[in-house]
Amino acid sequence: MDDAMETGSLPLYQDRPRTTFPDMRTKPTMPLMFRFLMRMNVRLLFVLLFLGFGAIFYVGASTSPIIVFVFSICIISFLLSIYLTNWVLAKDEGPPEMFQISDAIRDGAEGFFKTQYGSISKMAFLLALVIFGIYMFRPQQESSGLGRLTSASITVFSFLLGAVCSGMAGYVGMWVSVRANVRVSSAARWSAREALQIAVRAGGFSALVVVGMAVIGVAILYATFYVWLGVDSPGSMKVTDLPLLLVGYGFGASFVALFAQLGGGIYTKAADVGADLVGKVEQGIPEDDPRNPAVIADLVGDNVGDCAARGADLFESIAAEIISAMILGGTMAQRCKIEDPSGFILFPLVIHSFDLIISSVGMLSIRGTRDPGVIGVMEDPMTILQKGYSVTIVLAVVTFGLSTRWMLYTEQAPSAWLNFALCGLVGIMTAYIFVWITQYYTDYKHEPVRKLALSSSTGHGTNIIAGISLGLESTALPVLVISVSIVLAFWLGQTSGLVDDAGNPTGGLFGTAVATMGMLSTAAYVLTMDMFGPIADNAGGIVEMSQQPESVREITDVLDAAGNTTKATTKGFAIGSAALASFLLFSAYMDEVASFAHTSFTQVDIAIPEVFVGGLLGSMLIFLFSAWACAGVGRTAQEVVNEVRRQFIERPGIMDFKEKPDYERCVAIVASASLREMIKPGALAIISPIFVGILFRILGYYTGHPLLGAKVVAAMLMFATVSGILMALFLNTAGGAWDNAKKYIETGALGGKGSESHKAAVTGDTVGDPFKDTAGPSLHVLIKMLATITLVMAPVFL
Amino acid sequence: MDDAMETGSLPLYQDRPRTTFPDMRTKPTMPLMFRFLMRMNVRLLFVLLFLGFGAIFYVGASTSPIIVFVFSICIISFLLSIYLTNWVLAKDEGPPEMFQISDAIRDGAEGFFKTQYGSISKMAFLLALVIFGIYMFRPQQESSGLGRLTSASITVFSFLLGAVCSGMAGYVGMWVSVRANVRVSSAARWSAREALQIAVRAGGFSALVVVGMAVIGVAILYATFYVWLGVDSPGSMKVTDLPLLLVGYGFGASFVALFAQLGGGIYTKAADVGADLVGKVEQGIPEDDPRNPAVIADLVGDNVGDCAARGADLFESIAAEIISAMILGGTMAQRCKIEDPSGFILFPLVIHSFDLIISSVGMLSIRGTRDPGVIGVMEDPMTILQKGYSVTIVLAVVTFGLSTRWMLYTEQAPSAWLNFALCGLVGIMTAYIFVWITQYYTDYKHEPVRKLALSSSTGHGTNIIAGISLGLESTALPVLVISVSIVLAFWLGQTSGLVDDAGNPTGGLFGTAVATMGMLSTAAYVLTMDMFGPIADNAGGIVEMSQQPESVREITDVLDAAGNTTKATTKGFAIGSAALASFLLFSAYMDEVASFAHTSFTQVDIAIPEVFVGGLLGSMLIFLFSAWACAGVGRTAQEVVNEVRRQFIERPGIMDFKEKPDYERCVAIVASASLREMIKPGALAIISPIFVGILFRILGYYTGHPLLGAKVVAAMLMFATVSGILMALFLNTAGGAWDNAKKYIETGALGGKGSESHKAAVTGDTVGDPFKDTAGPSLHVLIKMLATITLVMAPVFL
Repeated sequence: MDDAMETGSLPLYQDRPRTTFPDMRTKPTMPLMFRFLMRMNVRLLFVLLFLGFGAIFYVGASTSPIIVFVFSICIISFLLSIYLTNWVLAKDEGPPEMFQISDAIRDGAEGFFKTQYGSISKMAFLLALVIFGIYMFRPQQESSGLGRLTSASITVFSFLLGAVCSGMAGYVGMWVSVRANVRVSSAARWSAREALQIAVRAGGFSALVVVGMAVIGVAILYATFYVWLGVDSPGSMKVTDLPLLLVGYGFGASFVALFAQLGGGIYTKAADVGADLVGKVEQGIPEDDPRNPAVIADLVGDNVGDCAARGADLFESIAAEIISAMILGGTMAQRCKIEDPSGFILFPLVIHSFDLIISSVGMLSIRGTRDPGVIGVMEDPMTILQKGYSVTIVLAVVTFGLSTRWMLYTEQAPSAWLNFALCGLVGIMTAYIFVWITQYYTDYKHEPVRKLALSSSTGHGTNIIAGISLGLESTALPVLVISVSIVLAFWLGQTSGLVDDAGNPTGGLFGTAVATMGMLSTAAYVLTMDMFGPIADNAGGIVEMSQQPESVREITDVLDAAGNTTKATTKGFAIGSAALASFLLFSAYMDEVASFAHTSFTQVDIAIPEVFVGGLLGSMLIFLFSAWACAGVGRTAQEVVNEVRRQFIERPGIMDFKEKPDYERCVAIVASASLREMIKPGALAIISPIFVGILFRILGYYTGHPLLGAKVVAAMLMFATVSGILMALFLNTAGGAWDNAKKYIETGALGGKGSESHKAAVTGDTVGDPFKDTAGPSLHVLIKMLATITLVMAPVFL
Repeated sequence: MDDAMETGSLPLYQDRPRTTFPDMRTKPTMPLMFRFLMRMNVRLLFVLLFLGFGAIFYVGASTSPIIVFVFSICIISFLLSIYLTNWVLAKDEGPPEMFQISDAIRDGAEGFFKTQYGSISKMAFLLALVIFGIYMFRPQQESSGLGRLTSASITVFSFLLGAVCSGMAGYVGMWVSVRANVRVSSAARWSAREALQIAVRAGGFSALVVVGMAVIGVAILYATFYVWLGVDSPGSMKVTDLPLLLVGYGFGASFVALFAQLGGGIYTKAADVGADLVGKVEQGIPEDDPRNPAVIADLVGDNVGDCAARGADLFESIAAEIISAMILGGTMAQRCKIEDPSGFILFPLVIHSFDLIISSVGMLSIRGTRDPGVIGVMEDPMTILQKGYSVTIVLAVVTFGLSTRWMLYTEQAPSAWLNFALCGLVGIMTAYIFVWITQYYTDYKHEPVRKLALSSSTGHGTNIIAGISLGLESTALPVLVISVSIVLAFWLGQTSGLVDDAGNPTGGLFGTAVATMGMLSTAAYVLTMDMFGPIADNAGGIVEMSQQPESVREITDVLDAAGNTTKATTKGFAIGSAALASFLLFSAYMDEVASFAHTSFTQVDIAIPEVFVGGLLGSMLIFLFSAWACAGVGRTAQEVVNEVRRQFIERPGIMDFKEKPDYERCVAIVASASLREMIKPGALAIISPIFVGILFRILGYYTGHPLLGAKVVAAMLMFATVSGILMALFLNTAGGAWDNAKKYIETGALGGKGSESHKAAVTGDTVGDPFKDTAGPSLHVLIKMLATITLVMAPVFL
């Protein structure tokens, strides 16, 4: 067994026969809605679309010209995304042995997506009923200007719309990646540059759809409510209160994103760990080898875990950030008695509309070379992607400045817009530094990963200790950066010159909100880079499985390596923006409680024992959630290991390419296990804040503490956010560092592949898998989900 | 290498020659103070002791009869401890091959202790100067009734006394364990029961000294300040303000305990991991084999890491808890205008005096059997220890009830004492449940460890994932228990009938304080059980190294296994009491800031961005501290691995018992490395709250926020406490579970010793070592150190 590992680095068997897959070119299955749309008469579809857009524009025009601007940009970017997808789909799918594998991956991914979103829909529907019930029976609602039924319908409708859009965002991410993967493999046979371009444009397609949908969804809801409720006409709701009605949308989005990330994350890593433990470690066959029964499940995992889940995740990030910034903008505009508050409220929509434009420019700046037919000296894909990012960042700075001048100029404080522009700059800088820190701790060009690799030379144990220390240590710099950003942006906002009636400066929180927008102002480009990773990874898998020449595999390997780096940096980016967004949502929650309870609620006092207990429970929630997420991967991986071992024993022909492994069985096992495992942590995340809030509300009622429930939930949320940020940073960085320490040794350092050091590094990599791809990314969805659930459920705690 | 592991389970070599140690019976070295005392004329010593005690009693009598009671109990328990130590020292030291090894261990431990406490003293002295400077130059002091110089001297004197006593507590723990170990080994040759009794009484000796010293130290300080400052005479200080002057003592104690735990923890685990990685894993020789060059360092580590450090740790726990409860008692008595507040202030001293009595009874209830000369069917030592614990717990409930009636009866609220007695019961119950939960998660009789062992069968990776999940999950139940205790004890206190001028109930916080006392009311017995572990472990090492027959080793193995369980449960106990004590110290801090700043300070509002940032930094401090503590062990272990590998290569005779390994070199390497590694995390812990407090004080000054520094530090403290509790629970439990999963496999399950599962379990055990014996225990010292440092440094933040 000891030297079995080494076969991984041997050249391919000379006499290795082609695995003959049965002809299994299958039709893709699509969700009902898509199928319906596809079957419709094209002319009818155009007429309907035209009418729909017309209605939207009409409502938008009745609301604000800014909304019309936002609609236009979104529709343009949807058109661009259609162009991109046509461009990608027009590419060659390669020979049958390629597209048959790709079909199998697509079937697995679509099958899992269907079952997973089936379960999620049921839960969402149940939760919608609960929310409706709560809003119908709470006494507070009477006094807030809306009828109970209106308020309940609005919240439930927003929730369901958010959930559906989030699901669509995930579907779109997966839809394009299962089609682009084979086209990238095919293109890699003749041009590295073209392969890169296909992956980037496929990623770009879903990025544009995800960001565009988040923006247009909020905009449509805003405009519809504005017109429906007759906002700002005498006797009805004020426009500054309108954003509070949108929180259901954010909650729906984060609800779906949480389960998508949990289910997908458990799926992808259980398949990966299971496949590696038996294939790579026990049998010594290379990664993605067609003889491994779990290899299709592994490749499916990349699509459902990375593409679908990340799409839902970023959709949710942007939606939550837009809504919280709108709430804070509205509150501030009201306090400062700004004549036309719509600029402050709609500012986030404009920023993200510009995001769509500048990211498209950045993406399209990555072009094919003049000489696409030659596999020559290959440019580092990372450099190409970074160039596009630099273009986007520069444009972001410019458009951010212009937007603040356009939207945030007010005569009450003529220089306020400048302060807010600086806040945006703080956010953009924070994003940039976060990316840099993540690279420092996870890239093997730098000290930390090299030391980690060195610690593998003294054994499995020291490798794990060093990796955990590295992960724990890597939380320090990001926390310092976030701390400086929060304080600096708040200070810039406070000194903007905006004051309330009593002359107190009030712009601080909005300053932090603007910094968050700055951080997310290149979201579409970042998502493009992120989506690029799993597509390249999958393309590599298809190349390996269809037994292409080494040179093709080399190209996809280079793309895959770049994808690993972009994936790690996106996580840094996501956690940074989650930290800022949660602080905003927390403030929005306090505003909302105050407005419902008709009392001032500006303090959450951790010196009260119950509030301290709320904090303890919040931090504990993070630990327990991480435990269950990791344990879910561990358990499912053990099932995969047992199944793969069984197949190797029962079908000895597999190893000699004489028998085809039963891929479907592994896919089915992973799918059903990950659906089962996602429920426990997900339910914990949703039920515990509600339970704690109601419990302490009752306790408060009997001990004579008004607002106790709301305060305890606030502390729970805050402590969960802080612990969640730290835990996510720890898990993501440790996982990424272990992965790259292994890759560093595989370059030949410290004995290279097959050495004892390499074995220890593989152990580290295995441990890191659920850290960085299941628990870590689920955590930053979780902390935003907690923030939105408390916002929606606030009435229950009062 | 693969089957090398198995030699570990083979019978001893038949032809294995006795290793001939050179005659190295050495004289023990002692700290200067002890040497001085030893050389003094016995009569003179008695006269001096008599005069000293006379003076103490005189001062005590002028303060309160309660103080006289406390003094008397402490002196009786010191006399009992002298009896115990004479009893232990009178036992046989065994043959030369035993006591020579024991001498080597003693020399190593004493050498390290000397250097370590040399460094700690220098740092303490420096810090004392800093504190003196701060107290001399702060303007706030003027108005608090004491002169600057008085106040500075009091704080510095208390700090230094606390530091010296904490150092002595550590020294005493180590002093007895390096002497008892060989006597336990020797007794194990003929009677298991006597061996157990020696270990228990040796542990009991240091437990009585540690607890007695904590109690008498506070009592002496209190009485001295009372008489010196003429408290309660007209125009001078009120007795209810007196406890605030004692905080320096708590800080001194926790300062020393932190470095003792860090240095000792890094020493013991670096030696252990290093010895195991080369000895057990690479060379396949058993644990504690005399051929392993790092084995003496490993045995020294048990003494400096477990005995010395845990002594200082529990000393600090009790001191901090007594002082914070006294502060809260004083504040409450003042608010309720209780006629004679001394009952409320001195209550903790009485509880811990009773602790000394009841724990002695519990300890002495463990007796030799009637037939001590026969090695027969051995009773499970755990059962014997548990019986003693039950005796102690029952007595604790009784004495607690009596004490509350005696001390806390007041005519203003005649039933208050009953409520507080119930609070005590809550504390005792919490301790009991904590111990139970720890056992559930770390004992292989139960589900979690069995599942962990099972996960080893699929490889190193799944073992680590399962262990980390288990550790993270195990935080949930303790947090729920602590939460219920805090809320319940607070509620019992609030409803006690004690009200302030305005009629508001005020007993809540004191109720929590009483619950903490309840939890710690059996501290001396728990410490006895804890000290028992490393003594038994060391005895086993001496038996193995001196090549005694299997039957002797079997007896020490059984004792060692019991010791592992008691060690794990003490950690649960320590973390539970730390959680409660920190909450008290936090309240004391707020009281103190309010009293210095002459303003109300009852709220720490986490909705202020700077305060939120303080929380982020506090949690981050925990992650960074854990990272550096674990990394310190990893780095030092790598040095040990390289040294041991070098010795095996350069002296090939070692493996055939022909050449003696260079033990001293390993001892020297571990000692110097662990001294170096303890500085970084220790300095971080001390400097960061001071730095953050001063930074935000300055920021607050320029942005017009009074008390900003104090608030940010409060949030930092609170978030650090919560994260610290969770992280410590995670680290301790995961480490203990890995250890026992390995032990479970070694009983023959899942393939037993030498199987692939066993190798994976050994990796888990190695990873768990720094978790459970370095970072974990350092964390609960850290959170109390943070609480006391903020108390002492409070003037700087204003």
